[in-house]
Amino acid sequence: MNYQIIEKKVFLIFKKFGLNHNHSKICSKAIINAELVGAYGHGLSRLKMYCTRISKKLINPKPKFKIKKISPSITHIDADNSIGFVAADIAIKKSIQNAKKTGIGLVAVKNSGHYGLSGYYAEQAVKKNLITMIFTNAPPAVAPHGSLKALFGTNPICFGCPTGNKIPFILDTSISMINRGKIRFAEINKLNIPKGVALDKFGNPTINPRKALYGVQLPIAGFRGSGLAWMIDILSGVFTGANYGGKVKDPFDDFSGPQGVGHLFLTFKSNLFVNNFKKKIKKNIKTIKKLPKIKGVKDIMYPGENKFKRFRLNIKKKLVIPKNIKKDLSTLLS
Amino acid sequence: MNYQIIEKKVFLIFKKFGLNHNHSKICSKAIINAELVGAYGHGLSRLKMYCTRISKKLINPKPKFKIKKISPSITHIDADNSIGFVAADIAIKKSIQNAKKTGIGLVAVKNSGHYGLSGYYAEQAVKKNLITMIFTNAPPAVAPHGSLKALFGTNPICFGCPTGNKIPFILDTSISMINRGKIRFAEINKLNIPKGVALDKFGNPTINPRKALYGVQLPIAGFRGSGLAWMIDILSGVFTGANYGGKVKDPFDDFSGPQGVGHLFLTFKSNLFVNNFKKKIKKNIKTIKKLPKIKGVKDIMYPGENKFKRFRLNIKKKLVIPKNIKKDLSTLLS
Repeated sequence: MNYQIIEKKVFLIFKKFGLNHNHSKICSKAIINAELVGAYGHGLSRLKMYCTRISKKLINPKPKFKIKKISPSITHIDADNSIGFVAADIAIKKSIQNAKKTGIGLVAVKNSGHYGLSGYYAEQAVKKNLITMIFTNAPPAVAPHGSLKALFGTNPICFGCPTGNKIPFILDTSISMINRGKIRFAEINKLNIPKGVALDKFGNPTINPRKALYGVQLPIAGFRGSGLAWMIDILSGVFTGANYGGKVKDPFDDFSGPQGVGHLFLTFKSNLFVNNFKKKIKKNIKTIKKLPKIKGVKDIMYPGENKFKRFRLNIKKKLVIPKNIKKDLSTLLS
Repeated sequence: MNYQIIEKKVFLIFKKFGLNHNHSKICSKAIINAELVGAYGHGLSRLKMYCTRISKKLINPKPKFKIKKISPSITHIDADNSIGFVAADIAIKKSIQNAKKTGIGLVAVKNSGHYGLSGYYAEQAVKKNLITMIFTNAPPAVAPHGSLKALFGTNPICFGCPTGNKIPFILDTSISMINRGKIRFAEINKLNIPKGVALDKFGNPTINPRKALYGVQLPIAGFRGSGLAWMIDILSGVFTGANYGGKVKDPFDDFSGPQGVGHLFLTFKSNLFVNNFKKKIKKNIKTIKKLPKIKGVKDIMYPGENKFKRFRLNIKKKLVIPKNIKKDLSTLLS
């Protein structure tokens, strides 16, 4: 199917579930973007979950955002259990506004939910010539170093900056060996997950996605990755007033209350300290692309390049939608 | 030897090499702190190198700092090829000042040098009840993902925040599998390095520290670690106006000019969005410490705890100084 057709369907589904026109637009765009960049774990595979949570009144389709100005640079947002996409959209726009005015923008969000890909919001800031760092916490998936029990989310670190060309530099990396979304995608599509990325609930290595979801995901680089996950939980949870320390609820399995996710959006003007940031970063990328390559590597890519190229390719093609998701779409619309 | 005695010696050495009283104090304190926390690669093992670079006029012992106020929150510092310790000390103090005034502080430094442990400066901010993130770049050590040639430094990510108890939360992690300082320490002391942390210059795995120094260090988690290293080079190099993209000079081997290191110091008031940050983080740490432990693990520690405990132990003991460093101390003083 043409991606615009599916986007329209998703838009109509969100409208049907009570979101207003603008919010439905924001959500459908974000979900289709995830499909187009190939991040299927953050795309249509979550649509049914969002709708279920709206039905169960765990996502508020008509949130009243409390936006508190702390200073011309700093804003706090209580998202009133909004769907994450909308909370993040408001927050990144506010952070951009603050940075444009004062050079630096810091926006904290509490009472939010899963917002898809951090990189999607980073792109908005980069288009406005800003450097950005974005943090969000997530439901328990990764065990703190030394422990057997999942508590941290796969908590991504996201960084974006302009490059002086069409493809922005967008690093969007979870601190787990693999994204939880990819494990969910494998589960739904009956695939195995790679070795060395997860343990089952007894602490044994597993390639079964279902066992991994009930077990523990492994952080990158042992104590280093565990420390980064903790840092991100502090920045997006403890600092913002959101849930933290394992209290962010899993959107798929936990219907005991709203998720309570927190996010932090930091933005800087890229020319704060130099007047030729774009020229410098362009030179930087050029230098690195020219380095001697490992056998078999055609092109040294910068973070975000791959995703952007997939996006550019996919908007010209029809989206391939798995059967179960086609079924979701028609059930949710009917 | 008692650590105070060695600190005094180091102080006198820096004075002898032309630093003023205050700057010599800052440097000797930072170096002894590295010894006390057990980060030997950032301690006395570098003293001779600093002095050599001062003698060769690659470190300016009498720097004239250009401190430019961009806004009440934002400051830019041209460190005039100062020794890194002094530049970082001025920068973190300025960042603290800005955050105390406006809630957020951002200080960028260019024309600086190696400043030892990022965590040492983070501690200063945390003592003032701030949350902090600190980035610095470093000489080429890690190859960009897909390339065979070292270009990124081991570029640490540092994050600190108050904990409501005496031991601050200080994550200070390089994005390489092992700190370059540890490889240098192994080289000097004729030890092997662990497997899987470095390749020699031909791309073969090595446990020989000398071969590793002339080869490539491996980043944590492949493309993720490579991306983080690149992010840090952009934040502390491209953004600040410092050297970047492999142009930061190795202080031990490259005498063709000053190092040109860049740093970025970011600080926030911890109570910007909640009025009980300390209570929350205390609860967070308590929850995590109580989790079921992996067999053999006695205590789940938070980042910085181990270092703090080593510090507390070591200030009561005599410092054990390797022979070659004892020799350095007396040669440099004579």
